[in-house]
Amino acid sequence: MLALTLGDPAGIGPEIVVKALRRDAALRQRVVVVGNTRVLTDAVARWGEGVAIECVDLRAAEIGRKGNAIRLHPVASDEPPNATPPAPGVVSAAAGRIAYDAIVEAAELSLAGHTCGMATAPISKLALRAAGLAEPGHTEILARLSGLAGSERYAMMFASERLQVVLATIHLPLADALAALTPDLVYEKLRLTHEAGRWLGPTVPRIAVAGINPHAGEGGLLGHDEARVLAPAIARARASGWQVSDPLPPDTVFMRARQGEFDVVLAMYHDQGLIPVKYLGVDKGVNVTLGLPLVRTSPDHGTAFDIAGKGCADPSSLLEAVRMARQLSTASASAT
Amino acid sequence: MLALTLGDPAGIGPEIVVKALRRDAALRQRVVVVGNTRVLTDAVARWGEGVAIECVDLRAAEIGRKGNAIRLHPVASDEPPNATPPAPGVVSAAAGRIAYDAIVEAAELSLAGHTCGMATAPISKLALRAAGLAEPGHTEILARLSGLAGSERYAMMFASERLQVVLATIHLPLADALAALTPDLVYEKLRLTHEAGRWLGPTVPRIAVAGINPHAGEGGLLGHDEARVLAPAIARARASGWQVSDPLPPDTVFMRARQGEFDVVLAMYHDQGLIPVKYLGVDKGVNVTLGLPLVRTSPDHGTAFDIAGKGCADPSSLLEAVRMARQLSTASASAT
Repeated sequence: MLALTLGDPAGIGPEIVVKALRRDAALRQRVVVVGNTRVLTDAVARWGEGVAIECVDLRAAEIGRKGNAIRLHPVASDEPPNATPPAPGVVSAAAGRIAYDAIVEAAELSLAGHTCGMATAPISKLALRAAGLAEPGHTEILARLSGLAGSERYAMMFASERLQVVLATIHLPLADALAALTPDLVYEKLRLTHEAGRWLGPTVPRIAVAGINPHAGEGGLLGHDEARVLAPAIARARASGWQVSDPLPPDTVFMRARQGEFDVVLAMYHDQGLIPVKYLGVDKGVNVTLGLPLVRTSPDHGTAFDIAGKGCADPSSLLEAVRMARQLSTASASAT
Repeated sequence: MLALTLGDPAGIGPEIVVKALRRDAALRQRVVVVGNTRVLTDAVARWGEGVAIECVDLRAAEIGRKGNAIRLHPVASDEPPNATPPAPGVVSAAAGRIAYDAIVEAAELSLAGHTCGMATAPISKLALRAAGLAEPGHTEILARLSGLAGSERYAMMFASERLQVVLATIHLPLADALAALTPDLVYEKLRLTHEAGRWLGPTVPRIAVAGINPHAGEGGLLGHDEARVLAPAIARARASGWQVSDPLPPDTVFMRARQGEFDVVLAMYHDQGLIPVKYLGVDKGVNVTLGLPLVRTSPDHGTAFDIAGKGCADPSSLLEAVRMARQLSTASASAT
């Protein structure tokens, strides 16, 4: 059984979850929504015509694959009984807290073996901050809950139709990301990339390493970070038997991977990796957290506050995320 | 008349120039190759079967549009009379000097009004360095010859089929590029972007400003450069009547421009702008230098030393560059 969270209640998360579940009856039998009862009830009233909600407790018993309702494992948040629902498109502490509480419960259910993993709808970092929570996103929250905060032993991977990218650094100001890159960090991310590539494709995935500087430093003319940071990590990775490229010019490495020369690219910072992943649209992109003791995927897009509540959000990327979570939970179960 | 340089003789430049000119007889009547006699003779012998070379002097007389030969304005370089030609795919000082001398002559011809501009085949920065030349590329050389070195009054623009991008910084190590970004620099690049957008499209082009940090800083959570550097430049640009966006998340701004929401994107550093430009292939991409007192375009790709001399190089992007140079020289002539 896979857990599915609703994301920030003021974003498009509840809408795309309900649209996805309404569209696919088989999916309703394979996932359980983990979230706030009022938020799901409200979303089903708007976008789930004809579909019922059945409350379940994932801790209490095995959940069977029968019935036609959307199953909900309710998560209570500390809110007044008559609180108005978070307004669509508005950042609020209440919405941040509701989103956060569901993530924590879904993670604990997965870590305790009650589910095989989780797919998460988008949250707002500003709402988390308003709720007094320091972490900028799912990945960092889940790393802490898994006891990996402050380590380099997890990473974000983005998979779109013809490109798979792992980020060496994630949510840092760009200058801080450059300062954070070390040979040890890059080696650790290469390890995660190699493992993920093995799950998703060939036994020895062909990993492309994006450079840090223009033209990958062009032999030192445009920077020395490639020799200082990347070369030692690449040498260690090759000694481990992994198939890893030299540092390649960032402006063409993603094009080359898309054309089939590599299975996955290790990008050095957030936008280097996500610009190509998102360039052709975010309809099918999936985000996968690597290195955690639980499977977690999410759609590639954000809360889309500008269209929240309007009924025009597209659940395609969320459906891809659910599909990928199921694939990964099978692969990681058979690997252990 | 448009000047066309051969680029680094060890790269694919001479091959794509000859292929383009052999393919298009009308083109042969509109451009003059500015370059080394031996390099062009050698390339015509290999890839220009049936086409003759006619030597001309662009300073001496108006060049008519007749005849069927490839016209050459010869540029002598300081090389021994019996020197062997630069070997394909090998960086050498001799090749760097030959490439450089042609650029200088083509620029001087254009600045003196003997041509309407120049399209340039790719050069090797390492070969320039081997020849004792400090500048990393055409743009910087031409800025110096135009008296603009050290100023911010020029920029590189890349145009592909559905995306136009101007770079705020060019060939700098990434950390140095971040340090170089100031409100004055960004304002100056917005001016160049606005002018170029006017030449190529609508009267008031819709300019998207890419952020510096992930999520454009996400309200300060992921960096303050957007507020410190970009906001003041954007405010000044709007006061000038230009249509300029707020700083936008870098990972989606190029997708949005490609989908038609903006006419041109101002990118903050080399790879931010060039990853999306090149992602779908470099066959049609064109590089335009903005702000110079001469028109200059080039293909989007490099010397491609790995395939140099093999006969498989594609002249499409060079042909696009020639087309764009002719369009710009007409637009800038009618604007003055």
